This record gives sequence, structure tokens and C-alpha cells, in this order.
Amino acid sequence: MALSRVGVPENHIEMTLDVLVTADLQGILTHGTRRLIPYIMRLRSNLINPDPRLALHHLAPSTCLVDGDNGLGPVVGMTGLNEALRIAKKMGVAFVGCRKSNHFGAGAPYALKACRHNMLCIGGTNAPANMVPWGGKDPILGNNPIFIGVPRRGKPHFILDIAMSTAARSKMRTAAERGERIPEGWALDPSGRPTTDPIQGLKGLVLPIGGHKGYGLALAVDILAGVLTGSGFGTGVPSLFRQWEKPQQTGHFFICLNPEFFMINEEFAERLELLLEEIKSSTPIDPEHPILVPGEIEAKNISQSESKGIPFDPDIWKALSGLSQGNYDIEVSKL
Amino acid sequence: MALSRVGVPENHIEMTLDVLVTADLQGILTHGTRRLIPYIMRLRSNLINPDPRLALHHLAPSTCLVDGDNGLGPVVGMTGLNEALRIAKKMGVAFVGCRKSNHFGAGAPYALKACRHNMLCIGGTNAPANMVPWGGKDPILGNNPIFIGVPRRGKPHFILDIAMSTAARSKMRTAAERGERIPEGWALDPSGRPTTDPIQGLKGLVLPIGGHKGYGLALAVDILAGVLTGSGFGTGVPSLFRQWEKPQQTGHFFICLNPEFFMINEEFAERLELLLEEIKSSTPIDPEHPILVPGEIEAKNISQSESKGIPFDPDIWKALSGLSQGNYDIEVSKL
Repeated sequence: MALSRVGVPENHIEMTLDVLVTADLQGILTHGTRRLIPYIMRLRSNLINPDPRLALHHLAPSTCLVDGDNGLGPVVGMTGLNEALRIAKKMGVAFVGCRKSNHFGAGAPYALKACRHNMLCIGGTNAPANMVPWGGKDPILGNNPIFIGVPRRGKPHFILDIAMSTAARSKMRTAAERGERIPEGWALDPSGRPTTDPIQGLKGLVLPIGGHKGYGLALAVDILAGVLTGSGFGTGVPSLFRQWEKPQQTGHFFICLNPEFFMINEEFAERLELLLEEIKSSTPIDPEHPILVPGEIEAKNISQSESKGIPFDPDIWKALSGLSQGNYDIEVSKL
Repeated sequence: MALSRVGVPENHIEMTLDVLVTADLQGILTHGTRRLIPYIMRLRSNLINPDPRLALHHLAPSTCLVDGDNGLGPVVGMTGLNEALRIAKKMGVAFVGCRKSNHFGAGAPYALKACRHNMLCIGGTNAPANMVPWGGKDPILGNNPIFIGVPRRGKPHFILDIAMSTAARSKMRTAAERGERIPEGWALDPSGRPTTDPIQGLKGLVLPIGGHKGYGLALAVDILAGVLTGSGFGTGVPSLFRQWEKPQQTGHFFICLNPEFFMINEEFAERLELLLEEIKSSTPIDPEHPILVPGEIEAKNISQSESKGIPFDPDIWKALSGLSQGNYDIEVSKL
């Protein structure tokens, strides 16, 4: 196994694979096991600590600060989430911040885990700067994702996992390949002018959702995940793929909330279904595309993956297989 | 005074005016004292309880459920925020939900109050359904605002107060008056097609920021503020202006977080200024429009209002003066 070759202990391998494989099952292949490639290359470059001593500081009854000791992001992130779940179980709500972490995968696996513990969860992580502040043209803010989980009974858990940029660069790449325009509001060209040309957009910068609104939300996530925890922030979170001088210093936060302290679980479940049924029964613009609730696509992907397997990119699969045999001749920035 | 004429006790008048006048000072005139007009008309119609018995239920150490007994929204909201501040001071974090409330004004005054107590705050409220779920054409979701406050030292507090719709209807009205088009992504026409015509947009429906992203966030706010607290949700929150059959049943939530339990206040303040200085010093697209941090406009408005007064609409002022003399002959839906 490639992770044990670089000195990662068994329990940390389990935590990491749990997060990454869950993302693959949820259909979030961009943030699944393929991320093992840059993780392993960073472990080999001494940019991630393979065997960290995580420390949990409890300075107040309902908060905790996890020092990740520059360990693998999923290890630090899951430690933070587990602690938030433990505290919220008793105290009703918990806020856990994580410092000295790294890229932690997607947010959806964390949201799903909270739901499986019958807890609501709001979380966020900062990310390498790739987005402009509203009105600016320098990329000094990450697209800092927010994830929210709400447990449902007998239905796919409500799982929202969204970056604060309007569209991922991968969507612009698809439009460019198809020769299509992109909508207004997705990107600026390299000189800072709005563009509907995906090629100019790819050379330029992604824009936040809702203009000043997404900018403000991304900044708030950086304050909570980065500033408050003692992690990197702004341009101080190096790219997982392109910056090999220092550790990422990523920060995360998890707010867990126990619905049992507001109403009995049955009542919460019933009321939630009333809302979501009303949403789903409303008239779709296109009758062939019924209205979806966040988490339905992920749940469908999980059941499909379980029967049909995960549709891995063959190049990624080859690189991963090579890594487990000690073949490190990989151009990470291309993956 | 118009509120005492309809039976609101002195301390509730103070709380209400504190929220509404602060919004006016912050420049949020749409959500300031002009909202007294529908509040008073609803009090007179027995749709708001002038003298509620608020109940605080503490079922866990760090959470609280406030039952507003159908009182004025700012009274219920401020009671919730005050309780969240009190709990977070000691426990580190607090989650307070409010049920049986009404329209509570703008979020910014609550965020400002939390900042003045040196607390971070994340809050939300549900609102009458006026927005489509992504892919739908029925208005079954409110634009459910989120507000976030982060205290700064010697600088305008970070205050974000944003609805989950791309643009307020008032912006479409301005565009229509000027004969301008609106950008893609603001609105659908009455048949559910995207439109850049503000007149069609005003007849149609507003869209969420970032498409499925803002839809998911608005839905999450409705779950936290509406479903979890025992308030109305979905189409179950009547309009303040247009629906006079039953109380609004609005719900709110407040998460307060004490930064002292993560690092000493001086360090937090210094790190925060490093981030915000980096943001502000980045290159603006238009050199005449430097990059702003959320809260700067509100702080500037406060200091301008204090020297020059608040630029009230004369019609609103006339209606408010009439109300204080017992003249209730007002068409609320026009204000």
C-alpha cells in the first residue's frame, strides 16, 4: 500500500481512505482517491507529516481546537468532526477548529458522517487562493467550500457541499472543449473584464457566487477556518498541486448540532419531510428534470457505485497502481 | 408613540426601535423604521401579540429554544441573540433558535451587536416564499438571509447580511425605471424562462445566487430557522405586507462564538487585519472603486447618518407620523 510505504500508520490510512473512497462513491471523483497522488508526493517531499501527533485543546466546554501537526488532511478533518460530534451529543452544539492541516478531501463525506450520527453539521475549509475579491482582479481568496448535512429518515440525507465560486474550472474546460460560451458571471478574462469565452475564463479568474455575496461568504470561511484556528489564510495556503516550498497550513471548522434538544427526533424528521416534499412537488421548468434536494445525486451515486463500481479514469488508476509499487515518476500538476 | 398606542410595553418598544433605527443608521432603509408601518398594522389586526410572554427553554448546556409567543420580531430576535451571547461567553459557542416570531428587521443590527460584545455571530431567518427552488418555477422558498459578524479592533466590524437571491426586486425596479437590462441569472419570466428584461423579471421570480448553491443554502436556513425551531417553513411563512389571515410564524437562529477560546484577542485581531489588509490592497478592476470588506459601507453610513441625519422617504415619514397620532388609513402593500 502506497501510504504505508511513506510511513503513514494503519489507523491514519483507514481514516484517509474512508474520506476519499466515500467521495468516490458519492460521485465526487475529483476529490476522491485520485487525491492520494498529490498527498503521497507531498508526503515524500516532507510537506506532509506521515505520523503526526494530533493535539486536542479544550479551552471551553463546547469548543475544541485540533492541532493537526501537519498530518494528512482527512486525518485532521475527521478527528475534528469526531470531536464535534462527541461534544454536541452532550452539549447540544459544538464548534471545532482544525489548524496545521492539509487538503482534507471533499466536504460531503464529513457531512454524510455527521448525518449518520443523527447530527446536523455546518463546516468549511479554506483553500489555495484562486478567486478574486469582489471588484478586484488578484486571486487572493480561496473558493473556500461550505458543507452542510441534515439527517433524514429513510431518505437520502440532505448534503450540500459547495465552493464559493460560481463554477468549477472543470466546467469551463468542458465548455471550451465543446466550443460553447459560458454564462456571464462565471469568470473574468486575464485583464479583469467579464467574459463568456471559456478559454479567456480559464486564463483568467473565477468569480464568486452572487458577486459580493459569495465573496463575503468565502472571506467569512477564511476567518473561521484560517484566522481563528491559527492556520494559513488569504494567499498563505499553498496549492496542493503547484506549490512545493512549504506545507499547506490549511484550516477547517465543524459546527455540529444535536436536533434532539429542539424537538423529538420523530417530529423533526416529519417536519423536514413536509418541507422537502413541498419543494420536490413544485413545478419543474423542464418536466424531464424534476426538482432535486441536495444529497439526492450523491445517494444515487453511492447505490450505483455499489452495484456497478466506480468509473475511474484509467490514467489515474495507472498512476495509483504505480505508486503502490513505488513508482513515483508522476507529473502531479497534470492530474 | 404609535407602538404604545397598540399595547406594546416600554421595554419591547426600546428593543424594536434599537434594531430598526440601527438598520436605518447602517443605510438599510428598506429594513429600518419604515417596517414599523406593517408591524403596527399587524398588531392592530391581532396578527402580532403586543405583550408576549417569551419563554426560554434550555434543553442542553449550549443551546436554547426561544418561544416568541408571536411577539414583535425584533423583540424575539434580540432575546435570542442576547441568550446566544450569554451562553457563548461561558461555553465557547451557542446555538439559539427562535420560534413563533415575526419579521425581525435586517440581520446587520444583530451582527453589529454581537461584534460590540466581541463575539463572532452566524445567523439566519426564514422569510415569505418568493424564490424558486433550482430547476423549478413555483415560489416556495424564501430568500432566507444569512448574516455574519466578526469583531474588528479600531476598524469597521466585518458585517455580512445577504439574502440568498441574486438581486433584490428593488434593483430590478431601478433597472426597469432606467430602461436598462438586467444580467442573466437574476430572474425568470412568468413562464419560467431566464430573462434579462427587468419588467418580465418583476412579473416573474427571483433566482438564487449561484443556482443550485444559493438554493441549497436557502433551504438549509429554512431547516435551521424554520423546521428545527418549530416555526413555519416553505410556503408556511405569510408575507408581512400581503397576507393578513394568520401570524407569520417566522423562525430565526443565532450561532455565537467566543474567539477568546481559540487565541488571545490581540492575536486574533492582528491576524484578522493581516487578511483584510491583503484583501484591500489587491488590485481593483476599476481604480476608482477600491476593494471593500463587508461592513465598511454600513460603518460609513452610520457616521454619515450621525452627522447629516437619515434620508427618510417623505411619504414614509408622513405615514409614520400619522400612525403616532392614530391615523391608520394606510395602504401597507405600497410601502
